[in-house]
Amino acid sequence: MLVNEKIEALRRLMREKGIDVYYVPNEDDHLSEEYTADYFKSKSFLTGFSGEAGCAIVTQDFAGLWTDGRYFTQAEGELSGTCVKLMRLHQEGVPNPMDFLISNTPENGLLGFDGNVVGSLDSKRLSNALAKKGARLHIEDDLVGEIWGNKRPRMPRHPVFVLDEKYTGETAHVKIERVREKMREKEADVLVLTRLEDPCWMLNIRGDDIECTPVAYAFAMVFAQKVLYYIDEDQIDGLVRDYLGDNGVEIKAYDDLANDLASLHGKRIWVALGSLNTKLYSSIAQDNLIINEVSPVAMFRAVKNDTELANTRNAHLKDAVAMVRFLRYVKENVASGKMSEAIAQEYLYRLREQQDGYIEPSFPTICAYQENGAMMHYCATEENHAMVKPRGFLLVDSGGTYFDGTTDITRTIALSGLSDEEKMYYTLVLKGHLALANAKFLQGSSGYNLDILARQPLWQIGIDYQCGTGHGVGHVLSVHEGPHGIRWGMPSPLRPCVALVPGMIVTDEPGVYLPHKLGIRIENELIVTKAEKNEYGQFLAFENLTYVPYELDAIDLSYLSDQEIKQINDYHAMVFSKLKDRLAGADLAWLKEATAPLSRV
Amino acid sequence: MLVNEKIEALRRLMREKGIDVYYVPNEDDHLSEEYTADYFKSKSFLTGFSGEAGCAIVTQDFAGLWTDGRYFTQAEGELSGTCVKLMRLHQEGVPNPMDFLISNTPENGLLGFDGNVVGSLDSKRLSNALAKKGARLHIEDDLVGEIWGNKRPRMPRHPVFVLDEKYTGETAHVKIERVREKMREKEADVLVLTRLEDPCWMLNIRGDDIECTPVAYAFAMVFAQKVLYYIDEDQIDGLVRDYLGDNGVEIKAYDDLANDLASLHGKRIWVALGSLNTKLYSSIAQDNLIINEVSPVAMFRAVKNDTELANTRNAHLKDAVAMVRFLRYVKENVASGKMSEAIAQEYLYRLREQQDGYIEPSFPTICAYQENGAMMHYCATEENHAMVKPRGFLLVDSGGTYFDGTTDITRTIALSGLSDEEKMYYTLVLKGHLALANAKFLQGSSGYNLDILARQPLWQIGIDYQCGTGHGVGHVLSVHEGPHGIRWGMPSPLRPCVALVPGMIVTDEPGVYLPHKLGIRIENELIVTKAEKNEYGQFLAFENLTYVPYELDAIDLSYLSDQEIKQINDYHAMVFSKLKDRLAGADLAWLKEATAPLSRV
Repeated sequence: MLVNEKIEALRRLMREKGIDVYYVPNEDDHLSEEYTADYFKSKSFLTGFSGEAGCAIVTQDFAGLWTDGRYFTQAEGELSGTCVKLMRLHQEGVPNPMDFLISNTPENGLLGFDGNVVGSLDSKRLSNALAKKGARLHIEDDLVGEIWGNKRPRMPRHPVFVLDEKYTGETAHVKIERVREKMREKEADVLVLTRLEDPCWMLNIRGDDIECTPVAYAFAMVFAQKVLYYIDEDQIDGLVRDYLGDNGVEIKAYDDLANDLASLHGKRIWVALGSLNTKLYSSIAQDNLIINEVSPVAMFRAVKNDTELANTRNAHLKDAVAMVRFLRYVKENVASGKMSEAIAQEYLYRLREQQDGYIEPSFPTICAYQENGAMMHYCATEENHAMVKPRGFLLVDSGGTYFDGTTDITRTIALSGLSDEEKMYYTLVLKGHLALANAKFLQGSSGYNLDILARQPLWQIGIDYQCGTGHGVGHVLSVHEGPHGIRWGMPSPLRPCVALVPGMIVTDEPGVYLPHKLGIRIENELIVTKAEKNEYGQFLAFENLTYVPYELDAIDLSYLSDQEIKQINDYHAMVFSKLKDRLAGADLAWLKEATAPLSRV
Repeated sequence: MLVNEKIEALRRLMREKGIDVYYVPNEDDHLSEEYTADYFKSKSFLTGFSGEAGCAIVTQDFAGLWTDGRYFTQAEGELSGTCVKLMRLHQEGVPNPMDFLISNTPENGLLGFDGNVVGSLDSKRLSNALAKKGARLHIEDDLVGEIWGNKRPRMPRHPVFVLDEKYTGETAHVKIERVREKMREKEADVLVLTRLEDPCWMLNIRGDDIECTPVAYAFAMVFAQKVLYYIDEDQIDGLVRDYLGDNGVEIKAYDDLANDLASLHGKRIWVALGSLNTKLYSSIAQDNLIINEVSPVAMFRAVKNDTELANTRNAHLKDAVAMVRFLRYVKENVASGKMSEAIAQEYLYRLREQQDGYIEPSFPTICAYQENGAMMHYCATEENHAMVKPRGFLLVDSGGTYFDGTTDITRTIALSGLSDEEKMYYTLVLKGHLALANAKFLQGSSGYNLDILARQPLWQIGIDYQCGTGHGVGHVLSVHEGPHGIRWGMPSPLRPCVALVPGMIVTDEPGVYLPHKLGIRIENELIVTKAEKNEYGQFLAFENLTYVPYELDAIDLSYLSDQEIKQINDYHAMVFSKLKDRLAGADLAWLKEATAPLSRV
């Protein structure tokens, strides 16, 4: 079915139900923001836009797809020829989707969506605003699902496994007790864990229900005396069942959660309403008191213990070996004229697979030649990709999930014939990247305080990368994880202001994206570490967790201070020293060259 | 009466009333934070600590004075020999005053304070927390006032005047209508203005009730059809009475506000609870709905119109003339051995008084030689001051209120014989100061995003200046004004995250404060201005509003980049060009030298 036909089919269903405006978000029933199972990709099915962020809104005379700056170029392409209008989020004159829904629902009208995939806070805001004009919500029907019919992918139900304590550094038993301690502090009778990562972290369980993210579709409720784990029976084998039993965890059917929530009365229920879907929320009786705060697991997850950090460093060493081999491969083979984006990214997948303890990619690799790099989440496919020519840049953003940790790295590879302008952009991106990595800051600082260090060199020339500078990274979990991040602007419940604390991991990835021209991004992972403590307080700094060289040929020294040049040289010396015993022959010789010290001549 | 005797007198009164813990904040009945009338300086009367920030708490076996990093050195001196313990705010292991009050009030105990000078939000938080242990608040008695007796300064009641439209750029009539438009947006029936600056700004009225701040003790209530202005009758002459009448403003007695608030029923009342005192709050009936948001006047005030900006630039030109003459005077006379801090600051007061349209200092001048500069709010007096010797630094933080604007500037004057270490500190402070002044940033950025530009050079060497980097400046009003600021850490209701918008004025004043050693601060005022607008959004930048040279002799070029050296030279060329027609003879020749371009040789 073509996109326009689907939109027409949806409009027919809307007329039948008397729905004036229909809203199709990007989330799953856990309100996972970015990566979800294919079952939940209603927005992509409906509009043809395959990007992982955004939402669609349809009325009888309008169909729009909202997405953010990372996806503008991609969305322009994928929506062209359809009746779906691209709505560029955060651009001047573009209403945000919530405001659009409110102002476009007519007096006494009906706004529809699937209540399983819309958050309770959004629903509440919508229904309050609509009440003023006599309009209402209709949350019962998944109309896009009806159109999708039996072509819709099935809900994934893959077996889960236990991640050994040698990788997690802490038993489920201890983690559950830490959670209960926080519950006692808040005087909570129940904690409802809705984020996919939360039960996984707490129970040391991993799954395979979302591509590139080792989680299982499951909820959990923690009580003082028991833990209920809502997951499909088929996903649990005997070993896992025994393990959970030993930890006092009772297995319940996935769909039982709504009923179990409904049976709670007079309880203090700790649940983050921002990640509780509307249907589940509506099942909670009014005689309970809701403690609407982020789950303690979110903060626990973000702060890695020493075992996790040691393992993660090891994962990054293995990842660096794969990346160095890949860089050499690209540089030495690009002149052949036979290298496509798809071939290069396949090669990188194979190199990571050779590493011990590799599980899967931590997200779909972005391997984007020159102007394709301007699409922040570009995806080369067998059918649709560019050839890599020996000039300009190849942007490669990739990562692996290993049993010992999760990696995320971007290198923008300098091919040959770089112009002065291209070198300037590369150097200014690197300048910001270095400034953040080199930051020293008092404990209590958040990513909102630090972001401008990375962004200022580009803002000075009137360029912005239109996304955050950095995100947390899960431990054998989601490659994008909160609650912290490196961002600018106003904090919000979805992007809270969270102080950085030792043990957190965060990425450092400024970039330049010039549509139809080029894309440059340089990304390392950083660990928040302690620096000196004195009368002013505890200073913090970053430890570089990524051990892969930058592109010497792309650096224009005239944009760098002596201190910045020294920082690059020190980083390269560290990279060489970490990898020299893991590489040999031509790889080692190549690395020696690639990490040679820079000087002003 | 000695401090210890006052504390004992207070303890006697507490025992009589059954009060276990007594709290003495620093605020007045408008919750002005820093500068208040002497009538309200209960904390200073009780403890002897004369600094403008902090609070005191007394129990039968404890007396403590809390203050922040700006005042530690000063407080150590002033409290020594008394029974009052210095509690260093924000230092590890020091409970904040609210937590201390809660944990030190016994089960079923009584916590007392004067409800006129404690904010309603603080009271609410305290009473909620105390309720858990059966304890209560006692807000009726001003026990320190009872001890003070007839020695207490009287409530100030000075005549007010109308600030002409040629200075304000907007009539009271237009301002009131802008306020009403915001009230309609919020569907507010009444707006209660409690901050001292708010009625002044809205009505274009200025007063003289607080030293160095041209405000009058007054409240206002705005309705759709009327404005009520609560102020002592004696402060209003016939001219002002007619002017207010013409603008539809009704004059009411200062103390009528509580009764008038009590007479409101079924209304939507817009009032910022953070600046409403407990007694006034308790007079509002429960059948009203409170819209607890910062008053629209706070934001209106912060964004200066073109007339205010043009006038302010003019005030700064006059101020720069005074400052340049002062700098020359200090440099040329310090060797005499007869210059004290008190003499130097008197001289500066005289120089400002010579300028057209000068009203008064915008705050008490800080003129602090060498180690005295480490006390951020040091005040040299006739009785207590140091001699200025011809070596090291003289820190001078001063400003003037003119009819056309308010100034605030700090220069740390290099005398002679600076050590390499002193030059390093001066240069790193300047480096941060320059980085902030040179910032370019997208609209939507707040001071929380920008602060680290000024702070990073000092954090890199493990030093922090323990206060904000910058504050807003009122227009012929308070020299410290919100709602914006340049700060790091977590936003809070008192320090909100407010986007910088064109027309705002903010200071840029990093520093180094080494107790018993030295103090360095460099402060300019900056105007937020528009830079380019492109596909990424509206970029903003700063215009320098202060036209006074830095200290060439104190700069160590090895800490600066070429770009930073150019920025200093460009600034100095601008200063010379702005002032050259306002100075002559030896002053002009001195300025020429002081603004000579730097180069690396």
